[in-house]
Amino acid sequence: MSLTEDQNQLLDQAKTALRTRAFFAAYPEHPKAYGADGMAKAADWFAGVKGNRFEELDAQSEKWIGAEESPYTQEQLGITYPSFSTDELIKRAIEIREGWQYLSVEERTSILLNSLERIKSRFFDIAIATQHTTGQGWMMSFQASGPHAADRALEAIAMGHDQLTRVQPNTDWVKPMGKFDVTVKKRHKALGKGISLAIGCSTFPVWNSVPGIYASLITGNPVIVKPHPMGILSIAIVVGEIRKALAEAGQPADVIQLAPDTQQHPLAKELAERREVKIIDYTGSSPFGNYLEGLTGKIVFTEKAGVNSVIIDSVKDFAPVAKNLAFSMALYSGQMCTAPQNFFVPKDGIKTAEGRMSFEEVSSAIAQASEGMMANADMAGPTYGAIQNPMTLSRGTKAQGKGRALIGQNTVSNNEFANARTAGTSLWEVSIEDQDIYSSELFGPTALIVKTRDTDESIKLASELAMEHGAISCAAYTQDDEVKRRIERAMERAFVPVAFNLTGPIFVN
Amino acid sequence: MSLTEDQNQLLDQAKTALRTRAFFAAYPEHPKAYGADGMAKAADWFAGVKGNRFEELDAQSEKWIGAEESPYTQEQLGITYPSFSTDELIKRAIEIREGWQYLSVEERTSILLNSLERIKSRFFDIAIATQHTTGQGWMMSFQASGPHAADRALEAIAMGHDQLTRVQPNTDWVKPMGKFDVTVKKRHKALGKGISLAIGCSTFPVWNSVPGIYASLITGNPVIVKPHPMGILSIAIVVGEIRKALAEAGQPADVIQLAPDTQQHPLAKELAERREVKIIDYTGSSPFGNYLEGLTGKIVFTEKAGVNSVIIDSVKDFAPVAKNLAFSMALYSGQMCTAPQNFFVPKDGIKTAEGRMSFEEVSSAIAQASEGMMANADMAGPTYGAIQNPMTLSRGTKAQGKGRALIGQNTVSNNEFANARTAGTSLWEVSIEDQDIYSSELFGPTALIVKTRDTDESIKLASELAMEHGAISCAAYTQDDEVKRRIERAMERAFVPVAFNLTGPIFVN
Repeated sequence: MSLTEDQNQLLDQAKTALRTRAFFAAYPEHPKAYGADGMAKAADWFAGVKGNRFEELDAQSEKWIGAEESPYTQEQLGITYPSFSTDELIKRAIEIREGWQYLSVEERTSILLNSLERIKSRFFDIAIATQHTTGQGWMMSFQASGPHAADRALEAIAMGHDQLTRVQPNTDWVKPMGKFDVTVKKRHKALGKGISLAIGCSTFPVWNSVPGIYASLITGNPVIVKPHPMGILSIAIVVGEIRKALAEAGQPADVIQLAPDTQQHPLAKELAERREVKIIDYTGSSPFGNYLEGLTGKIVFTEKAGVNSVIIDSVKDFAPVAKNLAFSMALYSGQMCTAPQNFFVPKDGIKTAEGRMSFEEVSSAIAQASEGMMANADMAGPTYGAIQNPMTLSRGTKAQGKGRALIGQNTVSNNEFANARTAGTSLWEVSIEDQDIYSSELFGPTALIVKTRDTDESIKLASELAMEHGAISCAAYTQDDEVKRRIERAMERAFVPVAFNLTGPIFVN
Repeated sequence: MSLTEDQNQLLDQAKTALRTRAFFAAYPEHPKAYGADGMAKAADWFAGVKGNRFEELDAQSEKWIGAEESPYTQEQLGITYPSFSTDELIKRAIEIREGWQYLSVEERTSILLNSLERIKSRFFDIAIATQHTTGQGWMMSFQASGPHAADRALEAIAMGHDQLTRVQPNTDWVKPMGKFDVTVKKRHKALGKGISLAIGCSTFPVWNSVPGIYASLITGNPVIVKPHPMGILSIAIVVGEIRKALAEAGQPADVIQLAPDTQQHPLAKELAERREVKIIDYTGSSPFGNYLEGLTGKIVFTEKAGVNSVIIDSVKDFAPVAKNLAFSMALYSGQMCTAPQNFFVPKDGIKTAEGRMSFEEVSSAIAQASEGMMANADMAGPTYGAIQNPMTLSRGTKAQGKGRALIGQNTVSNNEFANARTAGTSLWEVSIEDQDIYSSELFGPTALIVKTRDTDESIKLASELAMEHGAISCAAYTQDDEVKRRIERAMERAFVPVAFNLTGPIFVN
């Protein structure tokens, strides 16, 4: 099996983009690129799948499980998936492991690129499935689980292909020995490591799992996908399409298996501890992530909790800054790993082109921008989406009694779903002493404005918090090149990328 | 600082060799390439350094330590090195870390290539230092610690340079947004991970440490070198030359530090557990290697104990095979991680071009070839070298009482050093039931001939032993392509490379 000219071109484009870091999207992010009636058809498909067995995996089991619920209707989806024991999953992965490993790189690449074409034809179904399990707005569901996830999968394929073809497999190694030469015929093979386990999360069940899944597959490792029990449907579609692409190429579908579980009988630990599992890719809570990182004999990739900072030092004009930040806080109700949480603002305020702006003015400008976001129901509903986990609602109360409420806890109205579980931005002013509040992740739409002595203290806190508790994003606003350099250096100490002076349609992400 | 034309050419050659896996040696392995009086000068240097402080590190301390002993004379070298506490070492590494990290890739490459030129001028000193700490023969000491080690260091620099320059650092990321484009100015930096700790071993103090040291340095990490207390001198010269190359370029010498310790007050655990240490490179015993692998928040590379197999199925002519194997067993008295230990031979013997050869005939041919090696004192002395650790001598007794001695424990005479601590090849025939003997590493010159039912059982055992207890080499002799394929697959399951049908001047290695 060799790659088509189109596939080769696609791979080359992706490799070039990875090297140049230029913008590249093989899958346009706008839904209209994928047909006009996609949404309607997906609604029909979703109505049909609810309350039924999910048969797309072509996997039979005695036991079918599933307890997903829509954050928009707060009703059970009633969809069940074939359930297997850890022993069965591992046994099947071992059976097909060597066959998959010994396929040529071109064969694996071809099958995986074909699987992406299949997944593309399901973008609308994946969108509605993501929306009604995660609570994301429809557009985010479409983009994050659809084209953006497919682009990340393509990148993983391209990186794998690049690495696997970098070294010449067969060499006549000729060593001069003085009077004569010695020739050794060397053959090199890139071997898979073993079974790969992808442990999904409830908020980004496709986007967060797909890069690791494709990276493992292209490098010859079978994958067991253990989704979050509240976010199975969207990744089940993806797994189903990969299985179909495998079968179409005459390969065993079990190269990728879905391993659904329940909150009562979780499988992640059991699977992770099996010695045959050599690669683990995980998104979720820090305690479980730390436990996984402590397992030996495995390569473990984790994305754990974090505390993201915004450092505000100086701006030209604060109005577009406040708007940009309000949107970042609103997006999916702060349930993104990149959502900003702590806004560090000096007690004496900040410089602007129009003169100094006091701490209170900065705080209330951010609060006003957020209130403006929430007041516009047409915009707020789809932007905030719904709250995936009811426990998220209780986290916001942590600041109560300590900080001063700029915006207390509240809800956002949703024009489309009257019963949606929502929460609006909640904004608190806290002091530098309130470390117990701002030093832990307040997953959800709660943000804190922390009053610091000056920008140097803001930088120090943002960097230390990131080193101590992790962070995945940092936004900073400054017009001073020297301050910019200091922020850069400080955040590099914590390996956190910094986005400077974002306004307009690009957000901390 | 930019690279010279010669340096650029050298880098390119090394990168090409890494991709094509063709033979490439920037540093010729023959001593004559480095001047005729090198050995004599080194002997003078060694006489001067013995009994004195090692001042080449340009590092001052209150406390000087050292307890090395020559396996050839069984006398103390009396050389002492400046000793520092873990706190001091870590403090200094942190102080210079960012400066080193933020140098350009070209600057680091230039300094490191210059350090190799300096090291090259010390090859003869490094050779005698290696010989009189490890017990290696002089020629192996010269080649392994000199040109071969420098080639591995160059490879590490080339790989690092390749990876660090693969991605464009600055990009205007232009995303089409429909009616307009959004431009984000992206800057990417490759950052070091933190302090790197190189824990050396007593038998290959330079060769085994240098690749990790240079890989860490080129990628912007300061290195603390913690040598084995019985093998400091040779790597101390290397560290000293790197420090001089750093100082010459106006960089702090503490980018690399030597951390000698004693068997009474070992430093490895203390250093490894410091959170600032992010990379560990280790060669040594399995229990300590497993402990290091269990530390979290670090990247840990280990080379631990292993049990290497030789599978003998069929040959054209057994005489050159026996000679090749006898030499592999003799080389440095089996104190190499690649030394063969278990020879699996079917009970019904093997096929040769001249007809069947019985199990007993195979065993005695190997024994005779080994006895031939030992009988030739001129050749045996330098080939076997001396025994680094007295404890190695006692390991051979393990087979006693269980197996049948083909060659019992013995010594090898050394024409040059009358007091050398030596041991000759000791060869035992054991049965498949003697798992307790053949399933653990018998470090040193003890080898076992294991009588198996047939080649399939030989393959199964070699593969299982490697999976269970590790292995770094496997030699196999077969004239049957189907058997060859089975051996390949079985050993690939344990990630062990196989050398087929080696005879002549290339040995399992």
